[in-house]
Parts: sequence; structure tokens; C-alpha cells
Amino acid sequence: MLKQFTLAEIADFLGAKYQGENIAVTGLNTLEEATGTELSFLANPKYIKQIETTNAGAVILHENHAQAVKNAIISDNPYFAFARCMGLFAEKEGFFEGVSEFASIHPSAKIGEHCTIYPFAVIGANVEIGDNCTLFSGVYIGEHCHIGDNCTLTPNCVLMSRTSLGDNCYLQPGAVLGGEGFGFVRTDFGIQKIPQIGHVEIGDNVEIGANAAIDRAALSKTFVNSGTCIDNLVQIGHNVQIGKECLIISQVGIAGSTKIGDRCTFAGQAGIAGHLKIQDNVTVGPQGGVVKDIAKNSVVSGTPSMEYNTYMRHSILQPKIPDLFKRVNALEKQIEKLEQEINTKK
Amino acid sequence: MLKQFTLAEIADFLGAKYQGENIAVTGLNTLEEATGTELSFLANPKYIKQIETTNAGAVILHENHAQAVKNAIISDNPYFAFARCMGLFAEKEGFFEGVSEFASIHPSAKIGEHCTIYPFAVIGANVEIGDNCTLFSGVYIGEHCHIGDNCTLTPNCVLMSRTSLGDNCYLQPGAVLGGEGFGFVRTDFGIQKIPQIGHVEIGDNVEIGANAAIDRAALSKTFVNSGTCIDNLVQIGHNVQIGKECLIISQVGIAGSTKIGDRCTFAGQAGIAGHLKIQDNVTVGPQGGVVKDIAKNSVVSGTPSMEYNTYMRHSILQPKIPDLFKRVNALEKQIEKLEQEINTKK
Amino acid sequence: MLKQFTLAEIADFLGAKYQGENIAVTGLNTLEEATGTELSFLANPKYIKQIETTNAGAVILHENHAQAVKNAIISDNPYFAFARCMGLFAEKEGFFEGVSEFASIHPSAKIGEHCTIYPFAVIGANVEIGDNCTLFSGVYIGEHCHIGDNCTLTPNCVLMSRTSLGDNCYLQPGAVLGGEGFGFVRTDFGIQKIPQIGHVEIGDNVEIGANAAIDRAALSKTFVNSGTCIDNLVQIGHNVQIGKECLIISQVGIAGSTKIGDRCTFAGQAGIAGHLKIQDNVTVGPQGGVVKDIAKNSVVSGTPSMEYNTYMRHSILQPKIPDLFKRVNALEKQIEKLEQEINTKK
Repeated sequence: MLKQFTLAEIADFLGAKYQGENIAVTGLNTLEEATGTELSFLANPKYIKQIETTNAGAVILHENHAQAVKNAIISDNPYFAFARCMGLFAEKEGFFEGVSEFASIHPSAKIGEHCTIYPFAVIGANVEIGDNCTLFSGVYIGEHCHIGDNCTLTPNCVLMSRTSLGDNCYLQPGAVLGGEGFGFVRTDFGIQKIPQIGHVEIGDNVEIGANAAIDRAALSKTFVNSGTCIDNLVQIGHNVQIGKECLIISQVGIAGSTKIGDRCTFAGQAGIAGHLKIQDNVTVGPQGGVVKDIAKNSVVSGTPSMEYNTYMRHSILQPKIPDLFKRVNALEKQIEKLEQEINTKK
Repeated sequence: MLKQFTLAEIADFLGAKYQGENIAVTGLNTLEEATGTELSFLANPKYIKQIETTNAGAVILHENHAQAVKNAIISDNPYFAFARCMGLFAEKEGFFEGVSEFASIHPSAKIGEHCTIYPFAVIGANVEIGDNCTLFSGVYIGEHCHIGDNCTLTPNCVLMSRTSLGDNCYLQPGAVLGGEGFGFVRTDFGIQKIPQIGHVEIGDNVEIGANAAIDRAALSKTFVNSGTCIDNLVQIGHNVQIGKECLIISQVGIAGSTKIGDRCTFAGQAGIAGHLKIQDNVTVGPQGGVVKDIAKNSVVSGTPSMEYNTYMRHSILQPKIPDLFKRVNALEKQIEKLEQEINTKK
Repeated sequence: MLKQFTLAEIADFLGAKYQGENIAVTGLNTLEEATGTELSFLANPKYIKQIETTNAGAVILHENHAQAVKNAIISDNPYFAFARCMGLFAEKEGFFEGVSEFASIHPSAKIGEHCTIYPFAVIGANVEIGDNCTLFSGVYIGEHCHIGDNCTLTPNCVLMSRTSLGDNCYLQPGAVLGGEGFGFVRTDFGIQKIPQIGHVEIGDNVEIGANAAIDRAALSKTFVNSGTCIDNLVQIGHNVQIGKECLIISQVGIAGSTKIGDRCTFAGQAGIAGHLKIQDNVTVGPQGGVVKDIAKNSVVSGTPSMEYNTYMRHSILQPKIPDLFKRVNALEKQIEKLEQEINTKK
């Protein structure tokens, strides 16, 4: 945290007012952990008690709580104001500028203006890279790849041949795009490999997590549309198509040829089988296993996935299933006894 | 897609006949997506309606459907004929040839003929590499590793010391072989680390996925036999032994010392506990959790895994379990009432 | 396995006695696989029959079994004695010494004594590295990182900016620390990115697995305390706090802001939701899904996780659930019939 702003500068940046002393703010933190030179925020009124004990130098809060602290920035939406401050304090990752003489760049590659290429990055034949891109060390860009403007590929990211990225994409370390799809078919005469001759296409404003893998298509393309954010260690199979503004959380796996609509959210470790259609605005719970098509706006959970309310009822009852077996055992004995009694009376 | 063949050349390659115009074919695609210079195929008769609307320049199909299109290649098995064409159109990955002066190769390493070593690859002491191998940038080969002929290690693959690969192996980017097995034992006096002094041995014709991890053995070796294909982000623990021609789909985890037979298929995200014996031809469903030995030819699914038919019945009934609780509640009340009525009559 | 010791030297190292011939021991192995120059061990009496057929040159065993073999080392705890021998035979990974002229080291970086820096490692601005550290090829250390003494970062590990490691840490290949946390919030006006301005802090004696990912915090820090061991392909979300001496097995995912106590064990593929408190000494079973706080010393399993004994009973009964439905169907018919009979008699 090397940056520093005055409280007045921050208020000005937010288009908001401040009260109290115009202190120098050296960082941002939670009410619980903030020190005397840090700015914090109060968004959820249930944390209001922390206001009394916080060491924060100043707090962003709603005017309803303005008298609770001395130094404050007043905001209608303290959470978003604080999130904007996080952008203010964020440091651009990296320490190198220009194009390193220790990068390996094929003569046929075209690189835009104001790009940063770290030592030991490799750029292949016929690659095209837009303006203002940053390629960290260990990045490999295969032949015929196309990268838009303002993209960042952090260390050890790999784009295999013919992968394309739109503008403003950010790849966390170790992400692999365009590896060969798992095209193996078991036949009577052994495993047949189906060569994967498609590619990967990524839209604009896409973020891809550390050590995630997006396979290239068997034919045509694997596609991730603009605004979608993919977390660490996610697997996207060949020919998958993902819509706009989806959130794919860590360790999710999506099998081949599945089509996913816009604004879907898949929670951590969920698995989506192949050749399915998941429509817009679908939410899949953590560790959920989706094995059939899902209609738009659905919220599903469990394995195999079911409608959310059913899943929640099932979840609560699941630990009581052993007891249910006992109850059915008892019922069977009771009914046998009753039958005997009735037969005796006949 | 830079290659191009005439329809006659492709028919010749397949040992098949063609009909219609001898067009230039620039690529391969599905009936739905193919353009006028692309070749497609009809394997499953249920897609026959797509023949009417496809823009494909030509189609591989069975002679029963030959009159449905003008330009065609006639085949008894259109799917496999098409798969062979994919091999025809596949481009060899990469753009570099020879041994880069910017690779770091230990003087004691022995490298076969016709190998390609990219810039920034590292080859350690006493390594032996066969003929016709390709090591991309960022690859690290630890000391005493042995690599057969015709192997490809794509960018940023790592072989730690003493790992051996057979012939014709293909490693997707970021795969890690020979990392230390997780040899930690919790004892009364803290966690004890058990040094892992074994290694990893891989057979011939093995493919390993992006960012997959195969740990070296505590003693002796972790072993993957010939023809087995391992997908992205798979974890293989120390001392695991995997047979021939297995398909291990993405994100599967296999815990230490488990032995797996030949021709097993583990679907995505399945987990196999340690110290088990999984016999030949076993299939484990997606997200399945195997905690006991499995007999040959079994198909299992679920967590803990059960026989497939049982799993399917369970899957269908699972969402009805909350209703089953209600039904048992009702039965208990009914039977209590009946008991009272009978007692009253006594 | 290049090292070699006499049986007497090994006995001396263990502070134990040996019997038989003072053979040269070239390696360690199981009773089943050991050859005539290898040392094995008998810890569990159920393997005593293997003593009769083993080819091992010598065996570490309890004096109760001393007469079963000719060459032996006598130990009260053969397993731990053998584990110590594994340390004796373990080779230090790597083949390079000194600081490579082909590493890229920022002039402002401070590097301690006796460090090994491989070719193609990158060390950023204002980095501080202690003594006796080893950085393999492809390692990237972002600006303002701090690394203690005796740390090993194997090939292609990445520390993004401001990450700190304590002493004696070991990172397996491809581990990524300090990647940006998944700070995306879906709002009415699209996905908002919350910049992640915190960092990652790792204690002493921590091991981190191949291709694992530990995200940096939104604010403050993501923290892994001393002695904790993290396996391959594990995901640790932003602001997670993990206590001392935990074992986090392969493919586990821990979502953001969850706090974990000391000495917890999470088995493979378990998932822990965000914002939870898991107290000391908690064990979570394989593939378990934890969605609520867990009290200390608990053992839980299943999804959603339940108390271990309940889970085991549920696991056994789960395949019988389809049958339970049939039994309830039958009861409903029986009771209907009984009701009719009783009503008829009225």
C-alpha cells in the first residue's frame, strides 16, 4: 500500500462530502482491522457497534450514522463508494515497462503500441496483439493468435495456436487457453484420438482465473462471450459456449459442447455435463451436478441438480433418513401386529 | 485453417468414392455451421433434416443417403471417416524448429535427433531425450529424467527429477509430473513429513491434460500405463497405478496407492479414495465418490458410489424424499388411529 | 537412487542395532518390491507373511520379529525409523547452483546468501529474499514480495505482488499465490469488479501443492499459518484464514473470508463455503460440502456436511432408499385395506 490521499481528495473523487479532520489516508480496511490512517466503511447497519471500537482514521457511511464518528465521508451507498476507493488505491500489477530484449518474439508477429512484454515471454508466428497489452514472463502465445487492446496476461499464461482474445481481458497466472480438447473415443479396436482442429474465442472484458483451462474445439470454436468472469482452476471443455456476464466460480467443470446463456452463475465445484443447454440467468449451487437442460431463471442445486427449494428441503431431511428407515421398520411391525389382531377377531 | 484439399484428394485419402463437383475443401465443420468450402458429415440419421438446410460444400455420408446432397463422399462409417479427415486438416502445434540458443540445456543431457527445443526450456543434468521430441518454452525437465521418442511437452510443463515418459506422449500446457507426493502424517508431536523418494513412470502413447498433476511415489513409482488419456486438472496421488487405455476425465482426483485396471473410464470430478483396487473396465460416473474396491466391468455412480441402476433409481427418487417423510408422518397417524379404534373395540 | 549406505551406517543414523551381514543398501522399498540391495520395513504385523517371500536385503522390524530375517535393523517403531531413512536417501531436487546470469533480477531486489536462482526466473522490484532459498526456472516474484530463509519455489511458481512467505516454505510446481481474488458483484447495472488490494501472507514451514491457487485478499490479507500443508490443485479464496498445522488435501476449495482453526484436515475435493468459521481440529470427509460453521473437534462428511456417524449410517442406507419407497407404497396399501376392513365391521 504505497499510495496516499487526503480525505478531501477521496471525497472529491467520489463526488461526496467529508466531515472532521482532512487526514492523510494510507489505505483501506474493515472496521475491525483498520488503523488510524486507514479509511473504512459502514454499509450494513448490523456492524454499527464496530463503529464504537474501530481504530479507523475515517469511515464512509450513510448520513443517518454521520454523528457516530468524527472523520467521515457521507454516501448514499457506502459499499459502492468504498469499492470505488479500492480502485483508487489499487496498484497496477508489475514492475517492468517496454519490450524486453529477453522476450522471444517471432518476426512475423504484429504488436500494437504501448505494450509491455516481460523477459522470457514467447510470441509465435503471425500473432497479432493490440495496443496497451501486458504480457508477463513465461507467457506463451502460439501461432495465429489474436489479442485485442488493453489485455493483461500474467505470468505463465498460455494461449495455444489460433486462440483469440477480445479487448480488456485479464488472465490470472497459469491460465491455459486452446489446449487440445479431450477428443478420445473408446472403440472395439482401442481408443481413437479425434484431432481437435477448432480454436478458442474469448470476447471483451473477460477475466480468467489462475490455472484455469479452456480447451479448443474439435471443430469450429469454444466460445466465452463478453463480460464473463471465470475463477481459478475452472475447466471448460471443447466446443462449450458461454454467454455474457456469467460468473463461473472456482473449480467448476463444464463438459464439452454445452451451451450456456447470459448472466448465469455457477457456484464453486459445480459440474455441468456435456451437450446440455443452460438458458439465461440460471444459478447452480456449489458442488451441484447438472445432467439435463435447465430453463431460464432457474435456481438449482444438488447432484443430480434439482429445483432449489426441493434441494433445501432435501438437505434438511437428509440426516434424518436413517431415522426414517427406523420409523418404516416400526410401522411394518405395527401393521403386521394389527393385521394379526384383526384376523384373530374374524 | 490454412490447409486445403480437393474432394477427390480427401476421398482418395479415405479410400472412398466421391460424387458431384471436385470442390476445393478448406476446412471441416458441422452440418449446422459449415460453409460452402467446408466438408461436413452425416453419421446419425436423426440429423438428416440438417442435410436440407446445410451450406456445406460437401458431406461424408452413407450411400443410403447419397441422393440427399450433390457433393458427397460415400462411407460405411461417416463418423470415423470424418475423424480421419480431422487428422488430415490438423496443424502441428508450434512455429519453431531446431534447438534454441536461448534454451538452458545441461551439458550432461543427451538429446536425440530431430528434436525441437524452444527458447526458455530448461533441461537438467543426466536427462535423456529420444528422437523427434518437441519441448516448448517454459518446460522444465529435472535431473535424471528419461523421455522416449516422439514426445511433445507443450509450454510450461514440468517433469521433476527421475520422471520417465515412454514414446509418443503428449503433455498439455502446465502439466506437472513428479511433484512430491503429499506425505504428511499427523502425529502426537505435530505433522511429520515423509520424504518422497520414488518417481513417476509413464508408458507409451499417454496424453496428459493442462495443469494436471501426477505426484511422485513415496517409494518405487507412480505409474500410468500405455494408451491412457488424462484430462485437464486431474490429480493423481503418489504410488497410484493406472492400467492401459483408461480415460480419466477432467478434475478427477485419485488418492494415493490406488491401483486401477485397464480400460477404466472415470467421468469428470469423480474422486477415488486411496489404497483401493479398481479392476478392469470399470466406469465411474461424474462426481462419483469411490471408497471401496470395485470389481471388473462394473458401472458405478454417486457418493459413495453404488451400482449404476441403483444410482439411477435413487437419483429419480431423491427429489421425492421430502414427500416420503410426509407420507410416513401420515402413516404413523393413521396407524395410531387404527390402534386406538381396535383397542376401543376390545 | 544414487546414494548408498551400509546397514551399519543406517543403524547408527537411527541410533539402533543391526543384525546379520553389513550389506550395502542402495535404496528403500516395500517388502513386496524390494530387491537384494534394498532396505524394507515391517510395521504392521499383518504383513508378516511377506517377510517369508521378500527379496529385501534387510528389514527394519521390531525385536519380536527379529528371528524372521537374517539382515535387520531392530526398532521399537519400524515405520518412523523407515520414514527417517527416507530422509536419508532423499536427493535434494535440482541440478543448478548459484545465481544464473539468465535470470531476470530487478536491481532493487535484495537476495540473501547462498541462494540458487535458475535461468529464466524473474524477480521484481523491491523484493526481499532470505538466505538459502532456491528459485527454479519460470518462477515469477512480483514487486514488494518478501520471502524468508530456506524457501524452495519449484518451476513456474508465481508470487504476485506483495505476497510474503515465512521461512522453510516449499512450493510445488505451478503454484500461484497472490492472484486477484474473485471480486465480482452482480448488480442491476451489470457485473461490478471490486479491485483486490490486499495480499497473501504465508507462515513458516508451509508446503503448497502443484498448480494450487491462493488468492490475494480484497482488503488486508489471505493468511495461511505455520506448518500447514496444502496439496495439489487446491483453491484458497480471498481473505481466507487458515490456522496452524492443517492438512488440506488435493482439489479442496475454500471460498472467500472463511476462517479455519488449527490442526484441521480437509479430505480431497471437499468444498467449504465462504464466510464460515471452522474451529480447531475439525475433519471434513472427501467431497464433503460445508455450508455452516463447524465446532471444534468435529468430524463431518457429506453434502451438506453432517456429523460423521450420521453420514456413515446415511451412506449405508442410501442405496436402499428406492426400496424404502416400495415399502412405504406397500404400507399405504396395507393400511388402506385395514381401514376398510375395520370400517366394514363397524
